[in-house]
Amino acid sequence: MNQQYPSRLLEKAVDEFAKLPGVGRKTALRLVLHMLRQDVSMVDAFAGAMTNLRHNVKYCRVCHNISDSEICPICSNPHRDASIVCVVENVQDVMAIENTQQYNGLYHVLGGVISPMDGVGPGDIEIDSLVRRVEENEEIEEIVLALSSTMEGDTTNFYISRKLAPYRKKISVIARGISVGNELEYTDEVTLGRSILNRTPFC
Amino acid sequence: MNQQYPSRLLEKAVDEFAKLPGVGRKTALRLVLHMLRQDVSMVDAFAGAMTNLRHNVKYCRVCHNISDSEICPICSNPHRDASIVCVVENVQDVMAIENTQQYNGLYHVLGGVISPMDGVGPGDIEIDSLVRRVEENEEIEEIVLALSSTMEGDTTNFYISRKLAPYRKKISVIARGISVGNELEYTDEVTLGRSILNRTPFC
Repeated sequence: MNQQYPSRLLEKAVDEFAKLPGVGRKTALRLVLHMLRQDVSMVDAFAGAMTNLRHNVKYCRVCHNISDSEICPICSNPHRDASIVCVVENVQDVMAIENTQQYNGLYHVLGGVISPMDGVGPGDIEIDSLVRRVEENEEIEEIVLALSSTMEGDTTNFYISRKLAPYRKKISVIARGISVGNELEYTDEVTLGRSILNRTPFC
Repeated sequence: MNQQYPSRLLEKAVDEFAKLPGVGRKTALRLVLHMLRQDVSMVDAFAGAMTNLRHNVKYCRVCHNISDSEICPICSNPHRDASIVCVVENVQDVMAIENTQQYNGLYHVLGGVISPMDGVGPGDIEIDSLVRRVEENEEIEEIVLALSSTMEGDTTNFYISRKLAPYRKKISVIARGISVGNELEYTDEVTLGRSILNRTPFC
């Protein structure tokens, strides 16, 4: 017997939970003991939802977003503007932009950004498929780069813009500047400097 | 389609994760997307560990701790002192006391404390079985009450001590006082007051 856990089944469950990012062994134990107090049907539903997702998940053939079908509801929606493609890092970013209700174009989910430190090169993310998509679809007029404002994001933006240069499409990047509601005084210098350089006409 | 999630399977998995205490929908999504990047075998192992635990968990017939067998390794260990029984609220408390390596007696896990606010009465936790255990086991000489120092813990301590009074056993409670390493200046008044009243001989 392990010195700490009174049961092997309990220890195994805690081990599995503790593998999740940001979940330590104390939290894992707390969550597992919570599970133990629930109905069997609830625990089965929890476990079933995880395996079902992992086994049956699909990715949209066009934009590589998570989807239940071959082509995701956004790509197959005829009311969306197919002339504009927004390049994002992951699913959460698509959801964040959708929640703004300010964008009606399509997406392209890279599934990461170029990061030599983490061993992620251009071939490991969906850049080639983006280039092919732009090449094959005459109706695409603009590509919006909406990656995080980090070194990795900027590197990826630069790489993509070079790759897409031959197709002579409009390439734009989402605005960087002071967050709405933020005070000037507490904004970092780089952001403030950039927001002065990239000032826009006052309407 | 749901406005927010690109996939129903994803949404279902997030729903299940968000039911866990202290896990919001953003954290749930992050954990589920982490799962999605893992091998199928890892996700199956995770789900299997949960259902296996819930379906096959046992509780020790003697002390009601979680166990893989009818009688837990602590209760069945002949090297432990069966004359002393430590009453605790839950499994974590057993593990915490075991980790101190300062206690060699047996345990009794109540599975909660009396809490009228939460609708938990004396009949909902393992008090009757404790009384029966004390009644039936002549070798028990001392009962150590090791519940949290809260109103509910104190109420439960009082109730148990009244229930056990007829058996004329030694009943003790774990020491309350200033935590080791804490400065006097920052200790709350109630704890400091009690620690003066309950001072012990300096050895």
